[in-house]
Amino acid sequence: MPVPSRCIQVYDTTLRDGAQGEGISLSVADKLKIATRLDEFGAHYIEGGWPGSNPKDAAFFENCRGKLKRAKLVAFGSTRYKNTTCEKDRNVQMLANADTLVVTLVGKAWDMQVQVVLEASLEENLDMIRESVAYFKRLGREVMLDAEHFYDGYKAAPEYAIACLQAAVDGGVDVLVLCDTNGGSVPWDLQKVTATVVHRFPATRVGVHCHNDMELAVANSISAVNAGASLVQGTVNGYGERTGNANLMSIVPTLQLKLGYACVGDALSKLTSLSRFVDEIACQKPVSGQPFVGVSSFAHKGGLHVAAVLKNEDTYQHIDPSLVGNEKRILVSELAGRRNVLSKAEELGLVPAGDDAGARQEWGNRAKQVLGQVKDLENKGYSFEGAEASLELMLRRSVEGYRPPFELLDFSVTTDNKRIHYGPNSEGPPFNESVTQATVKIALLGPKDGGEACPTKICLEVAEGNGPIDAVNGALGKVLFSMYQPLQTVALTDYKVRILDSESATAATTRVVVDFEDSASGRQWTTVYAHPNIIVASVNALMDGFEVAMWDSLPQCCIG
Amino acid sequence: MPVPSRCIQVYDTTLRDGAQGEGISLSVADKLKIATRLDEFGAHYIEGGWPGSNPKDAAFFENCRGKLKRAKLVAFGSTRYKNTTCEKDRNVQMLANADTLVVTLVGKAWDMQVQVVLEASLEENLDMIRESVAYFKRLGREVMLDAEHFYDGYKAAPEYAIACLQAAVDGGVDVLVLCDTNGGSVPWDLQKVTATVVHRFPATRVGVHCHNDMELAVANSISAVNAGASLVQGTVNGYGERTGNANLMSIVPTLQLKLGYACVGDALSKLTSLSRFVDEIACQKPVSGQPFVGVSSFAHKGGLHVAAVLKNEDTYQHIDPSLVGNEKRILVSELAGRRNVLSKAEELGLVPAGDDAGARQEWGNRAKQVLGQVKDLENKGYSFEGAEASLELMLRRSVEGYRPPFELLDFSVTTDNKRIHYGPNSEGPPFNESVTQATVKIALLGPKDGGEACPTKICLEVAEGNGPIDAVNGALGKVLFSMYQPLQTVALTDYKVRILDSESATAATTRVVVDFEDSASGRQWTTVYAHPNIIVASVNALMDGFEVAMWDSLPQCCIG
Repeated sequence: MPVPSRCIQVYDTTLRDGAQGEGISLSVADKLKIATRLDEFGAHYIEGGWPGSNPKDAAFFENCRGKLKRAKLVAFGSTRYKNTTCEKDRNVQMLANADTLVVTLVGKAWDMQVQVVLEASLEENLDMIRESVAYFKRLGREVMLDAEHFYDGYKAAPEYAIACLQAAVDGGVDVLVLCDTNGGSVPWDLQKVTATVVHRFPATRVGVHCHNDMELAVANSISAVNAGASLVQGTVNGYGERTGNANLMSIVPTLQLKLGYACVGDALSKLTSLSRFVDEIACQKPVSGQPFVGVSSFAHKGGLHVAAVLKNEDTYQHIDPSLVGNEKRILVSELAGRRNVLSKAEELGLVPAGDDAGARQEWGNRAKQVLGQVKDLENKGYSFEGAEASLELMLRRSVEGYRPPFELLDFSVTTDNKRIHYGPNSEGPPFNESVTQATVKIALLGPKDGGEACPTKICLEVAEGNGPIDAVNGALGKVLFSMYQPLQTVALTDYKVRILDSESATAATTRVVVDFEDSASGRQWTTVYAHPNIIVASVNALMDGFEVAMWDSLPQCCIG
Repeated sequence: MPVPSRCIQVYDTTLRDGAQGEGISLSVADKLKIATRLDEFGAHYIEGGWPGSNPKDAAFFENCRGKLKRAKLVAFGSTRYKNTTCEKDRNVQMLANADTLVVTLVGKAWDMQVQVVLEASLEENLDMIRESVAYFKRLGREVMLDAEHFYDGYKAAPEYAIACLQAAVDGGVDVLVLCDTNGGSVPWDLQKVTATVVHRFPATRVGVHCHNDMELAVANSISAVNAGASLVQGTVNGYGERTGNANLMSIVPTLQLKLGYACVGDALSKLTSLSRFVDEIACQKPVSGQPFVGVSSFAHKGGLHVAAVLKNEDTYQHIDPSLVGNEKRILVSELAGRRNVLSKAEELGLVPAGDDAGARQEWGNRAKQVLGQVKDLENKGYSFEGAEASLELMLRRSVEGYRPPFELLDFSVTTDNKRIHYGPNSEGPPFNESVTQATVKIALLGPKDGGEACPTKICLEVAEGNGPIDAVNGALGKVLFSMYQPLQTVALTDYKVRILDSESATAATTRVVVDFEDSASGRQWTTVYAHPNIIVASVNALMDGFEVAMWDSLPQCCIG
């Protein structure tokens, strides 16, 4: 790793450009939470929104004032409109009223855009840029120009694109931010143009703002830095319109760990938790294979890879995952070896620490046995790699004397569809009454000395649902939530079905995968079950998920 | 756009390296379907698997032989083990037995890996590479070397890394594929090293194989091409271990549209449908913001952007989306959509031929109405892509006076699980008796003059099955196959379930897709239905599929 040289400033626009992403909608409270985390992470600038565009953004600036410890809060807006002055321009005035240390102005830098979209003269656009920058400088603000479409504009008319930057410099701009607004540039072109600008304006900082339309936003951002840019705009997890903005979660670790720039220092170890926190707030499902921060990013599956990684971590890992707050994961699957299974048992704390050779030997044998089961079951259609909780249960159950905290004695599920009006003259939809009911009979098997928290009894319950699984889940919940209070914070978060050997169609094996979360502890886990009958598979995956929850919440009710 | 210069060969490893991705598990039938689509797309090489590693891959090669029209099928394997010969090495022999035109051998090119992982001498590794390549050349195969960890190896020990390539060249290798196995390289370094190799081995083709650990796999792949590589390995949608392999869905359009290389020609317009097809087969939720192929990739949200795009498409789009078979999202091109629907009606022979302007006008209106329904239903979770039989039914039903040949009056499905032995001392499996039964009550509505082949009556039947859908299908068959003899050749061939809005877990909407085949006519068709209750969705998709069969086999029983 090279010695840190320049400091590259991190400019986050998750709250403004990121919020343009499809399906993302942030409340003022959400934005404040994210801003606080970005501040802790060491982002140098946090763009909070466009105060002229909506009242929510205006409220955010009101609320955020004075809350950030290190980061500078930025308000975003446009250069003044044509045929007016900054003093009379409503948007410029709202931007001024947001009263932030820093203001970023977007201005056009592509002649075609000025003429077609603004319907302004090229000269007027230069005046709009220069006057707007100068206006905010007179107010004592730090001012950045987001030169929209700069790279496309430079390709089409280089002199005019440079003239736009010159207008900003003439107005006293602090940072020239070059935008690849349509995300259509390749790294080596972008690098060359950036170097030209850095050379042309040696006294002004240069930044970069990229979009991911060709999956090149990270490469383009670091190429601009390589050419002399010292500020990078982007978003957490690459949120943004269309294909998203440049992903800071990949740019920051690459700049710091691979290229030796100073960015956020030791706070880099908060990268993974920042990424997942923002996904949580924005209601986005985390991408498991997201570089650096995904749960699969340092997961190893192939037996050869696993054996190699256990010999030397560098063999199949480009960095130590703890540097970005992530961790190595060994996936257990038919491709895996005994070593994978054993390291999973160690992770669960099942294998006694220290040098108890006997116990280690015993666990070695159990691991071998469990691995055999895994291979057997995967042959039947299971897939354990995303369902570590099912493996956890197999390991627990491999211990002699293990007894589950409860057992499903029997259940039934009935779906009935009746229509009141039918026949050739019917106007109604085909199914106008559909009712699904499930019953479950469960034996609670807590130890004799478990006390009131661990009753021993047989319960029978019934529930209706939207479909068979929903009904079974409802009936299970009626038993378990009332008998075991701590399970009340456990909920299903995802449910997936896969038909295997689908060539045998409706008689094929069905694999069901269920995700759970305990909102009290924050733990998430996944179980899997495969069976020709989708109902049987689903019920078993549900039961297993609750059994795992018992080990977390009520270990005193479990024997093993 | 520059004039096409070199042809860059597309080497797909979705079926081998892609299948290493977490949560991806492909059956032999899945692999065959994907290979066929890749062949149509114009991939030059399709890597089918590692015949030595598991029986599934061996079965794939058996089945795929002779099925590809243009693409070359590739079998993957390792160079021979240390201290043996190719003739005695079991993996080398299984690779030879796969009997493919092309063989790709992975060999180590980083001295540390040779010593730590292989525990072989550096000299022995060179022998392993040279002898293995030469062995397959003697068998008459085209041979590629995947030089594992090449870029890291070159950084650590450049002479040894080059010596590994030289060993392959000495063995007669056709293509040297340089691998960034850990995904830790930045584009400008990788480009420089690639150029060195291209220069050092002017008579040998050079390829590149990248991983996405820093979100740079696409940039690295095109940088290698920029340095002279002429073959790119990658996967559909970037599937692969950890953070995935280089994404061919971004690389191919960038090479072809932005950099002017020849790759797959006009078949590029199949890019989007290929991407979504593979996601569907692999049960992966399509990424809406995926570059080029995502549903949001050309979607415009910001009001200013939309206004600008309506003035000039280039303002916020880096390419014309139709070049990759995608579309802009705000201009939901009503006219184009209606035309598609209309041409479907023409295909079905519903629109009278000739110049009947009145009839054409009427069908124009129906097409508009059906298009509205399609949009409505897709909003609710349907997906008609690939389920044209459902569209066919909508068109038929849009005609005034249409009457289905039969209707499901009501049905019930019951799953019961009872265990005889239970409790803490039970030895048996959790569910030792599970029975699923379905009843259906169907009204046959044939026309009064339909004769014996088209009875008018109400039938009630019951059947058992492996699961609820199997039982319903059995009961339906009991009615339909006995009452309509020609339907006896109709069978379900595939059945898929997809949970939508999965955050609402077991109460989410379920989309069911059913494939049918009539072994008498050879016709295959697909229906789709979405409903919160999986049973209701499945029953409707089944009924619709049989209704389509009636139009084929017994049109005299249908009115419309």
